[in-house]
Amino acid sequence: MENIYTYHRLFIFVNAVFSSMGCSTKDAEIATKVLLSADLRGIDSHGIARLNGYLRLWEAKRVNAKPEIKIIHETPSTAVVDGDAGLGLVVAPYAMKIAIEKAEQVGTGWVSVNNSNHFGIAGTHAMMALEKNMIGIAMTNASALVAPTFSIERMLGTNPIAVAIPAGKEPPFVADFATTTAANGKLELLQREGKEAPIGWVQDEYGNNVSDASILKNNGSLLPLGSDRQHGSHKGYALGSIVDIFSAVLSGASYGPWAPPFPAYVPMPVDMPGKGLGHFFGAMRIDAFRPAEDFKNNMDNWIGRFRNAKPIAGQEKVLIPGDPEREIEKIRMEEGIPIPQSLVIELNTVAEKMGIEVL
Amino acid sequence: MENIYTYHRLFIFVNAVFSSMGCSTKDAEIATKVLLSADLRGIDSHGIARLNGYLRLWEAKRVNAKPEIKIIHETPSTAVVDGDAGLGLVVAPYAMKIAIEKAEQVGTGWVSVNNSNHFGIAGTHAMMALEKNMIGIAMTNASALVAPTFSIERMLGTNPIAVAIPAGKEPPFVADFATTTAANGKLELLQREGKEAPIGWVQDEYGNNVSDASILKNNGSLLPLGSDRQHGSHKGYALGSIVDIFSAVLSGASYGPWAPPFPAYVPMPVDMPGKGLGHFFGAMRIDAFRPAEDFKNNMDNWIGRFRNAKPIAGQEKVLIPGDPEREIEKIRMEEGIPIPQSLVIELNTVAEKMGIEVL
Repeated sequence: MENIYTYHRLFIFVNAVFSSMGCSTKDAEIATKVLLSADLRGIDSHGIARLNGYLRLWEAKRVNAKPEIKIIHETPSTAVVDGDAGLGLVVAPYAMKIAIEKAEQVGTGWVSVNNSNHFGIAGTHAMMALEKNMIGIAMTNASALVAPTFSIERMLGTNPIAVAIPAGKEPPFVADFATTTAANGKLELLQREGKEAPIGWVQDEYGNNVSDASILKNNGSLLPLGSDRQHGSHKGYALGSIVDIFSAVLSGASYGPWAPPFPAYVPMPVDMPGKGLGHFFGAMRIDAFRPAEDFKNNMDNWIGRFRNAKPIAGQEKVLIPGDPEREIEKIRMEEGIPIPQSLVIELNTVAEKMGIEVL
Repeated sequence: MENIYTYHRLFIFVNAVFSSMGCSTKDAEIATKVLLSADLRGIDSHGIARLNGYLRLWEAKRVNAKPEIKIIHETPSTAVVDGDAGLGLVVAPYAMKIAIEKAEQVGTGWVSVNNSNHFGIAGTHAMMALEKNMIGIAMTNASALVAPTFSIERMLGTNPIAVAIPAGKEPPFVADFATTTAANGKLELLQREGKEAPIGWVQDEYGNNVSDASILKNNGSLLPLGSDRQHGSHKGYALGSIVDIFSAVLSGASYGPWAPPFPAYVPMPVDMPGKGLGHFFGAMRIDAFRPAEDFKNNMDNWIGRFRNAKPIAGQEKVLIPGDPEREIEKIRMEEGIPIPQSLVIELNTVAEKMGIEVL
């Protein structure tokens, strides 16, 4: 059973929860907007479904609702930001804004962040660059769930990469993907539905390919994009590693298997080599390379050509990265956002605890 | 049958070929060094095996042996370089050097290149940053051989990405991979050996999964990293697209299905939207983020931890990106580089044509 809520109604609810945690008015609004952008774009695993998770991190004092986020080192094109254990939902837009400001000054801006927490969906942060006629890049490390090629140990998070590229008449190109074969959210969905996972998504504790969607609860691990060595899993492993290093080693956050876990009940790793979770953001001004109009005309041509690439029989058309999410966003803005009944119950428990109006 | 040649002997040979094409002494040396770095690192498809291909492009007047490579636009952290139809082997190091110089000035440098040609292996260019205590990034678009997810049309090249990251006592992290499930070179190897390709590498002209390693000759296509939608091919498609856009749309080179083909006998695409092939390079100074020593200590820790990740039973150890190539380089520097007899014959035909000493 699902209930449909307007974006507006959910905004008021989530905003009230963040405010009740002690976030400033401005921070609560930013966090709400970022969190709900996932629900709008159809990435339900990263939206309001995680609200209780953020709350638990705050209760466990792993999230600071009143962070003093600051730049601790910078050059004309770079900065390192200390998130002061704030919500990644708030720290990330702060850092992305710095990347954009640096790009305005010297062409590009690159910001690595330490001492942060889960930042929602990467795509939302990358897309901040679009209205400035810039290419936006966002990535983050995350709790270790992924085994490198040839390994049975969880060493990396699903470490997503997002790249947003402006076009002219066409909507922008927005890629946003985990560097694993499948995101953890998709696995959670299969578990809820009691379904099996395709072979190639996960392995068991011995490294066998299995279809058990709940294998992560039994020491299994997610597989890097490519699934196995023969199909390029070493490339997915390299990509996830690059995200980890740019986000966490470059900033002084905690990397690899020491990345702080999202579930508040999981103990923090011992001997963490850095502070909190790490992110990495980039902004490149289009006209730091060529006139923005020329670029956008070419992007329109690029997008049009790819959308009209000959489809496989039975497929309607070839998609441009960002197409599916934009279509869902349009529908959900008009028709509302469906929330499963079990989640409504969980959210209303949160509401009662925090003394705010139930959904 | 294979013949073993010292690096030194091959250097003299290749250098003589490039010189006989009319390259300057300096350019011939640079091109030789870059080309043979592929043979040294075990990426045989991209090394001396392609020498005749470059020569044919020069004969077809698609490669200019005496290019005036120049910056046509720049900001403190960016530049666009016009390669003047030069060998990518020469244009790429020129552009990467600019990225490094910009990073010295403002923390990072980003250079997009148009009007170039095939640049050898991406990793070699990215690695130029290492000795400067910088992270190096290199990518390029290439002749269209790859079908996007849901398509049967070749729209993208194998579009590789290389990222080189310095460490302290440990050797550097060097990832260098095509954004397809398998590089075209591996397919060529299987063809030569009369072997089948694993399912998931290629599709036929109707989009069926096939194991025919020569299917590209019959309108088949390579598959993006991930192989199919269920295993994340839309992510490989997005990655290949990002490389295409950064390398070619950002620079004004010819992108997507219009990328100039490497084989000189393949006609140039009609209505090319830009000039030549495109590349993209980046350099990020480590100490633009944090003290280089701190970073390197953490990288040593990162590498050591990942190398000691629990291996799957039967696997000796977990590899760090760059490990296999470095091991091969060490062996080949000492013991020489094996060249198949068929390639020796081809190279000696080249030698006779160009009036230089045979191998």
